[in-house]
Amino acid sequence: MPSEFEIIRKYFERPARNAVLGVGDDAALLRPQAGMEVALSTDLLLEGKHFSAGADPRKLGHKALAVNLSDMAAMGATPRWATLALSIPSADEVWIGAFAAGLFALADRFGVELVGGDTTRGARTICICIVGEAPAGEALRRAGARPGDDVWVSGELGAAALALARPDIAEVQGRLHEPEPRVALGERLRGRATAAIDVSDGFAQDLGHILERSGCGALVHYDLLPKCGAFARVALPDLERKCVLAGGDDYELVFTAPQGARAALAALAGEIGLALSCVGSIRTGEPALSVLDAEGREIMVERGYDHFSA
Amino acid sequence: MPSEFEIIRKYFERPARNAVLGVGDDAALLRPQAGMEVALSTDLLLEGKHFSAGADPRKLGHKALAVNLSDMAAMGATPRWATLALSIPSADEVWIGAFAAGLFALADRFGVELVGGDTTRGARTICICIVGEAPAGEALRRAGARPGDDVWVSGELGAAALALARPDIAEVQGRLHEPEPRVALGERLRGRATAAIDVSDGFAQDLGHILERSGCGALVHYDLLPKCGAFARVALPDLERKCVLAGGDDYELVFTAPQGARAALAALAGEIGLALSCVGSIRTGEPALSVLDAEGREIMVERGYDHFSA
Repeated sequence: MPSEFEIIRKYFERPARNAVLGVGDDAALLRPQAGMEVALSTDLLLEGKHFSAGADPRKLGHKALAVNLSDMAAMGATPRWATLALSIPSADEVWIGAFAAGLFALADRFGVELVGGDTTRGARTICICIVGEAPAGEALRRAGARPGDDVWVSGELGAAALALARPDIAEVQGRLHEPEPRVALGERLRGRATAAIDVSDGFAQDLGHILERSGCGALVHYDLLPKCGAFARVALPDLERKCVLAGGDDYELVFTAPQGARAALAALAGEIGLALSCVGSIRTGEPALSVLDAEGREIMVERGYDHFSA
Repeated sequence: MPSEFEIIRKYFERPARNAVLGVGDDAALLRPQAGMEVALSTDLLLEGKHFSAGADPRKLGHKALAVNLSDMAAMGATPRWATLALSIPSADEVWIGAFAAGLFALADRFGVELVGGDTTRGARTICICIVGEAPAGEALRRAGARPGDDVWVSGELGAAALALARPDIAEVQGRLHEPEPRVALGERLRGRATAAIDVSDGFAQDLGHILERSGCGALVHYDLLPKCGAFARVALPDLERKCVLAGGDDYELVFTAPQGARAALAALAGEIGLALSCVGSIRTGEPALSVLDAEGREIMVERGYDHFSA
């Protein structure tokens, strides 16, 4: 059986490219560019909780990094470096090789460098810490939404939750297991969006975080929400509402922007090849979200994901 | 039961002091000082592996941060910010409160700010990512040892392993459960030490990492190694050798420095109130460590900790 150090060397150590010092010392050394702020975020994924015991290791490597890249996207930060803390039950090289392949394929696409980590034997656990950069003062926070701003959503909602509820619908499984982080959108929203978050716990709950931090409410029209195309075929309106409003793991961006940015955002959608939908507006008042149906009736919104009540 | 967000707000969210943006957004925002490199490291601690199921949560909060501070010390970096990814089986507020108290007490002593994290329900798991700073080009790497350099050790070796082997020896338990990271030493070794590492897996193995990265060997005299005082009383020479040479979790620093630095290092020991022992020297040749006893005979050195063979 290979040792911890052989595993790190074989699967996770690459020559440092953009880092001053990468894997193999007590810490990595990074030199952020002048004028940039450093964005830092971490996500912990546990087997049996965030992924199933038999999960495809290649897809898992992708997803573990993707959820962190999505946090950078939601900040409008450019992801640059990551650390990986990995616990696995045994030094299964087939599993490790596939996991590393999935992780590095995505890392390479976004120019992210793995610069350090920790490897141990135990329950399968993945904790990635990601470091990005944004020009000082330009990162997208949750707290900047203002009454009158539009509420926007990228891509489509509900696909990941539909995939979880209906494993028989093959076309949406990739949306759950290999989400695409909206990094290019996040970068282009700097200077345009007033607040942003990624949809990890569900649209209503994640928009709710913007409302709480910004101290205002929002009115959203259910019909305007971009829905995963598969819902039109399954024709289960209750499941659709649940997935679209409260389904997690979509990793789309929800953001707010002044009405004056509409034309620029429409143009941006074309440039980056990603649908951007204006779904409602920010209003004064309590940090509450109202979702209206086509007849103007309020839809009861189920709470999204809470790791302690689930 | 409090929600995930209530727990974060109540126990882990404090106003940002040195960070541009702390807990409560998609990522923290940090502004490293001009001329500094950013040091980044992470450690994953699992219940049943790195700590026992009934571990005192206050001490666990201390230790989880201490092992990360020790990585900063080993780099000669000043720790500044940290993220905490925490999984716990239930929202037990007594446990969380004590864990947070232990973590923040140590963080406050070192001026480290908790700026983000992730909280989930599951097997008890702690993953901290720490961010520090060191003047560009001055961080202490493992690769800088040169033939002729002295090998130094801070404090005493073997106390943590003794505590693990002999829970009946009360006086050493604190060394295992509440180690003191050698941050001030690490900072003061900048410009003096040629290589450094912290003793997490055992003296022989950790010095071995310096030898591998530096491409040279070392000769160490067992009698010169600073040993935990309790060994003189238990009088178990085999256990002593095992704990001193291969015992992990001491979090002392092992470092190399030119012979010309001896007077400065002796003075430094006095200034920071921490014993520094010169225990041997670096020599040319294969990256192998020889440990000699008082009669000049070579001591067989047991391998230190390997997470996959243990």
